[in-house]
Amino acid sequence: MSDEVAIQTKLALRRLAKSVAVITTFWQGRRYAMAATAVEGLSLDPPSMLLCIAKTASLAEALAAETPFAINLLARHQEGISARGGAPWQGEERFALGQWSNEETAPPVLLDAQASFICTPASQMEYGTHLIVVGKIDEVLIAGEVDPLIYVNGRYGGVAATEPVDA
Amino acid sequence: MSDEVAIQTKLALRRLAKSVAVITTFWQGRRYAMAATAVEGLSLDPPSMLLCIAKTASLAEALAAETPFAINLLARHQEGISARGGAPWQGEERFALGQWSNEETAPPVLLDAQASFICTPASQMEYGTHLIVVGKIDEVLIAGEVDPLIYVNGRYGGVAATEPVDA
Repeated sequence: MSDEVAIQTKLALRRLAKSVAVITTFWQGRRYAMAATAVEGLSLDPPSMLLCIAKTASLAEALAAETPFAINLLARHQEGISARGGAPWQGEERFALGQWSNEETAPPVLLDAQASFICTPASQMEYGTHLIVVGKIDEVLIAGEVDPLIYVNGRYGGVAATEPVDA
Repeated sequence: MSDEVAIQTKLALRRLAKSVAVITTFWQGRRYAMAATAVEGLSLDPPSMLLCIAKTASLAEALAAETPFAINLLARHQEGISARGGAPWQGEERFALGQWSNEETAPPVLLDAQASFICTPASQMEYGTHLIVVGKIDEVLIAGEVDPLIYVNGRYGGVAATEPVDA
């Protein structure tokens, strides 16, 4: 029964369209990056973000240790940077595309990201295979026209907007 | 400083493209529905979803009381149903569009939703103005071609897919 639900869940989640971000941190003398789609704006008071990552990810250890991190929201033209943020690429290889900041005092920030949220871990919770991390936002950077990279149904894409709602 | 960060956060979050869902529950003899975009697939072991809702939402009280809920992921053509899931509509008015199940023993499910995840609250955490709810998935329903409704930059839209990745 539970296996059947897992299979159906995996299929159904292909329909949940997601923005793509690269989560970064500087931890124990090294830069870490990981492409991720499980990112939420949580609260404006205090300004905060939420992300879900596998407990097995290198980044999970850094975040569990309350290391500041950045959520770099990718633009449509940064699809290659998303691919670099996962296997088989490791460590510094993940920073080979795009222009990234490199300071020991702050998490790496991507030039021309749609937005970068620089956060301090504020709260966390484990569930199943994943770690849920709440980050209090210390700084926000915004660049370029609004044109986020989307991942849905196993493909990258962009948004085809229809009618304005509150624009 | 914090106000400045809140203003920048709000602007930056317009760039985080989101699928749109209607969260539903049957609680204390009434059906509740609320349109929401803060929905994540959390873990496949156990199959689970995460959502973030304002603590002031009527639904928050139902979920805090561990009432089963459904996440109904909308299709692009269901934009009107999304609008119905918020103010000024209340109570049963929110079910006026679309075909919804109506059973006292289960949360309302929308016919033709891209997917519906029927969940039992399993864990929760508060942060700032919001409640974070983890739901263990009991059942998944899938309908129609993949064509989710997207909300970005204050507008509804769909996905303009580019190249296949793992399809």
